[in-house]
Amino acid sequence: MTRTSSRYQVSIEADPELPIIRITRDFDATPAELMRAHTDPVLFARWVGPDGSEIEILDWDATTGGRWRYVGWLDGREFAFHGCFHAVGDEHIVQTFTFDGQPDDVALETLRFEDLGDGRTRLHAQSLVDSFEGRDQWLASGMETGVEQGYAKLDALVAELR
Amino acid sequence: MTRTSSRYQVSIEADPELPIIRITRDFDATPAELMRAHTDPVLFARWVGPDGSEIEILDWDATTGGRWRYVGWLDGREFAFHGCFHAVGDEHIVQTFTFDGQPDDVALETLRFEDLGDGRTRLHAQSLVDSFEGRDQWLASGMETGVEQGYAKLDALVAELR
Repeated sequence: MTRTSSRYQVSIEADPELPIIRITRDFDATPAELMRAHTDPVLFARWVGPDGSEIEILDWDATTGGRWRYVGWLDGREFAFHGCFHAVGDEHIVQTFTFDGQPDDVALETLRFEDLGDGRTRLHAQSLVDSFEGRDQWLASGMETGVEQGYAKLDALVAELR
Repeated sequence: MTRTSSRYQVSIEADPELPIIRITRDFDATPAELMRAHTDPVLFARWVGPDGSEIEILDWDATTGGRWRYVGWLDGREFAFHGCFHAVGDEHIVQTFTFDGQPDDVALETLRFEDLGDGRTRLHAQSLVDSFEGRDQWLASGMETGVEQGYAKLDALVAELR
């Protein structure tokens, strides 16, 4: 299992008034490079998820109205996720997200890539669900580890692509 | 313009704690009949929207992960909507919804058809958005008229289909 260190911290915040999780993270990459790493299935499978996980993309059409599905393995456990792409623009993605283990829970995710200039980008990710309980369970599930480690892998991937 | 009366009232409620609109409406139809009227594009176009509107379906794949888009005309004005189907089950639909006039606003809609027996069904529809302001603007837009008149047309359609 490789651990990658990063010069950027990830911020994960629960909105006090709305059932929303907000994630903010800077990258040494352009919005176009980050969009490519989020929409190309081969690249996406290389960075998403915690260290040691393996991802297989089962279905992928990263266009407005397309669908996606992938399965992953970590420490002998299998987990799968699926959803549809509501909108894929030049610098934003709106998609639905369901963990197959909780098929009735659906999150509406919005990713926005803010150009900071000088080849840097701030990712603003928002996850909206329909209850505070569901949101807080998700926060308590240890998601930070997967998010932090995934983004550290994404740092390494975009550096390699340059 | 035809007006159709109905023996069932529609309930439209704003959640006090969450940016959600909930719509409840009974129908003299089975869940399967209502699912068909929501997923068959020819049938859907016949009932959705207020009295006097005309609907043209531009894109329609009512399966899990599929996409949809339609345009409508009412009193000389054109309006269009689009989204993707996150899930289409036997008695529920989860989909995204955007009015093209406000492309940054996305609702996550859940429709659930509860079998009441004796050929009757209760529709539970939930619309989740990411701000109370957006939710309240939608409620203030006169949406009730379209919902009420659309469901009255749906009453007539399912009666005709029997």
